[in-house]
Amino acid sequence: MSQAAPDLATTLIAENFSRDATGVLHVGGLPLTDLARSYGTPLFVYDADGLRRAYRALRAAVAGFAEVDYSVKANPNPAVIHVFHEEGAGAEIASGAEFDAAVRAGVPPQRILFAGPGKSAADLDRVVGGGIGEIHLENREELFRVAAAAERHGTTVRVALRINPGATAQGGAMRMGGKPSPFGFDEEELSEAVAAVERQPRLHLVGLHLFAGTQGLKADTLLGQWAYGLELAAQIAKKTGRPLETIDLGGGLGIPYFSGDATLDLGALRDGLLPLIETLRRNPMLAGARVVLEPGRYLAGPAGVYVARVLAVKHSRGSRFVITDGGMHHHLAASGNLGQIVKRDFPVVAVSDLDGATPCTVSGPLCTPLDVLARAAPLPELSEGDLVAVLQSGAYGLTASPTGFLSHPMPAEVLVEGGRAAVIRARGD
Amino acid sequence: MSQAAPDLATTLIAENFSRDATGVLHVGGLPLTDLARSYGTPLFVYDADGLRRAYRALRAAVAGFAEVDYSVKANPNPAVIHVFHEEGAGAEIASGAEFDAAVRAGVPPQRILFAGPGKSAADLDRVVGGGIGEIHLENREELFRVAAAAERHGTTVRVALRINPGATAQGGAMRMGGKPSPFGFDEEELSEAVAAVERQPRLHLVGLHLFAGTQGLKADTLLGQWAYGLELAAQIAKKTGRPLETIDLGGGLGIPYFSGDATLDLGALRDGLLPLIETLRRNPMLAGARVVLEPGRYLAGPAGVYVARVLAVKHSRGSRFVITDGGMHHHLAASGNLGQIVKRDFPVVAVSDLDGATPCTVSGPLCTPLDVLARAAPLPELSEGDLVAVLQSGAYGLTASPTGFLSHPMPAEVLVEGGRAAVIRARGD
Repeated sequence: MSQAAPDLATTLIAENFSRDATGVLHVGGLPLTDLARSYGTPLFVYDADGLRRAYRALRAAVAGFAEVDYSVKANPNPAVIHVFHEEGAGAEIASGAEFDAAVRAGVPPQRILFAGPGKSAADLDRVVGGGIGEIHLENREELFRVAAAAERHGTTVRVALRINPGATAQGGAMRMGGKPSPFGFDEEELSEAVAAVERQPRLHLVGLHLFAGTQGLKADTLLGQWAYGLELAAQIAKKTGRPLETIDLGGGLGIPYFSGDATLDLGALRDGLLPLIETLRRNPMLAGARVVLEPGRYLAGPAGVYVARVLAVKHSRGSRFVITDGGMHHHLAASGNLGQIVKRDFPVVAVSDLDGATPCTVSGPLCTPLDVLARAAPLPELSEGDLVAVLQSGAYGLTASPTGFLSHPMPAEVLVEGGRAAVIRARGD
Repeated sequence: MSQAAPDLATTLIAENFSRDATGVLHVGGLPLTDLARSYGTPLFVYDADGLRRAYRALRAAVAGFAEVDYSVKANPNPAVIHVFHEEGAGAEIASGAEFDAAVRAGVPPQRILFAGPGKSAADLDRVVGGGIGEIHLENREELFRVAAAAERHGTTVRVALRINPGATAQGGAMRMGGKPSPFGFDEEELSEAVAAVERQPRLHLVGLHLFAGTQGLKADTLLGQWAYGLELAAQIAKKTGRPLETIDLGGGLGIPYFSGDATLDLGALRDGLLPLIETLRRNPMLAGARVVLEPGRYLAGPAGVYVARVLAVKHSRGSRFVITDGGMHHHLAASGNLGQIVKRDFPVVAVSDLDGATPCTVSGPLCTPLDVLARAAPLPELSEGDLVAVLQSGAYGLTASPTGFLSHPMPAEVLVEGGRAAVIRARGD
């Protein structure tokens, strides 16, 4: 290993992957050098066992409180969805095409929830016609669009209200004074929203969807949000006079990307759930509800790596640049252009670990200064033909990236399971 | 008009588009309301006359000094490339697929230049086999890859050296002390780079490519860079002992995106070129060289708009949110996630102009807080079904965006010319 104290990359490799005696990084037991040779670079590799491990760990942590569905937007490859489906997950989708991907992956339409602030009439027709389990309403216009779609299909649609809470979770506590948001109905208009749904004969109000934050790394913060969600759920049930069937507490479980990021403490989460479980048990209007968490990043992120091959190494005025065939067109998040305020480096490692590590810039092939995968990655000496891997790349990787930028081929995606690799997206040309 | 003093949007509309008597925005003489109805939303619309106007204005400004080629990466749609080709432009490309797009658009391979820091062997085979005019070398490894590709094809390749200057232009003056960069050869290694190319029998060194900045809005800064480029060109010619054939001064001409941005003053540019033209004339090693500018953004940006339809309008805790079917998945730059340090709003207008304008957030349909097209756009009252347009969207729009994010359909692209609209990319599904 190239560092004295374990850094984030070393910790993540120990948790999710391995290196063989010669230092080569393995994913799901297969050396990335072989996978890169077989499938070409750049390449996304996902480890099915890693996906399953993340799912099972979370399900165990929240057992007795919530079920765990998979948020398809994190990685919509049907093969990835299928792995979670095999583990028992339903799917949360955010577009008509994601609905199709989930169905193709084997998820029964009844196990699919549709959330998102701008659902089109076309997408609503697609999912209502396909027998979707639940649609989460985000605003008044949409409420009428869903009712119209239900009317067109001669059916009744189960809906939940997505609520933008009047309080926000900060370090475990809920502070009053929620923020303005395009998502969901503001808590202040809960009564009117419930009444508006109840007036629609084609809509059957069954639950709540809580709008919470993203990338939560602290158990306390998540627990605070969820406790608040149960309060809101109780309010809805009281207004409808019927027991609630669904309480969707959203995703928002984070994973460490940057040096110093904590890992979500599942033990603390589990311990903190007991009072919430009690709250549910004690309220007959909530006791029978299916509580759902639907993370994407947390389940899919750690099991994926993005592999790129070094095209050149340039020493320029005291800085070392490792230029690879991979870049922001496949991994916008790593380039720091997916919402980051301060650009920090994803964990990037050499596939063949060697002694000695000095900081270098890892940049891509695009003809723009934005195309940087890491600004100060501690990497050993590298040369043309060597491989580098970006960790934590299983979620919000390929499909969250501008793949058409400079018209390079789409990279392949490979899923490793049981010691075998399967191409789950063919390389483009 | 909704503002008393002309803001950037009003100025841009006056320069590039028009509004009819009822206030509806027209592009190339056609109302966007009709185009949105015919081709669906979201939609990119480009005005061929606008593309031609930008090209002709720049060509006139630099006449006698430089030719103007088109940088395909700004907008690689072959129909857009074709418009510039008809105007006389060659093409600068940055990948094998961009080469194919340029050839498909009618550009003769000899009029195509290939730049970019990570050219793969496969792309080099594609362009060398296709008879490309010139390849611009960025580093030592690439130099050998190009030589090997030339060898495989039994041909000689015309090459230029891309140089990262030892000085940077600041407010018109060149200051010594260039920055480290992954692009090109550092000026300090110019002699070695020339010698390395000259040793390759399959490479014919014909010119210089200067690495300069992007989004230059000041004539002085550009003139300073170009003057420095001529100095570097003279050095290369001196080292080879042959007159230079090509001096590529890059792109880097900017367009105003944000309130307060200046427009590049083409008159000042023209006036400042006289001493540069003299420099060329006086040096027999440069006098016969073809000087090339290859902007993309400057030529394609102003003639394009991105049109989205309002799905809902939500008032949340004192803020107005206009939720549209368009978003960051089609226009990453407008969302502030394409390299912006500070997120500022692109000019966004209502397609049907109405009195009264108050700031609102224009957000997209994706289930993420990042999906914002503008944070404080001064828009009139809008409701479901209305249209909004993002101006300055002809360059670095669709193909620079994460179109697969949340799996929405690809939007159509339409080119308007001579009062008729043609679909140049069909809507996906």
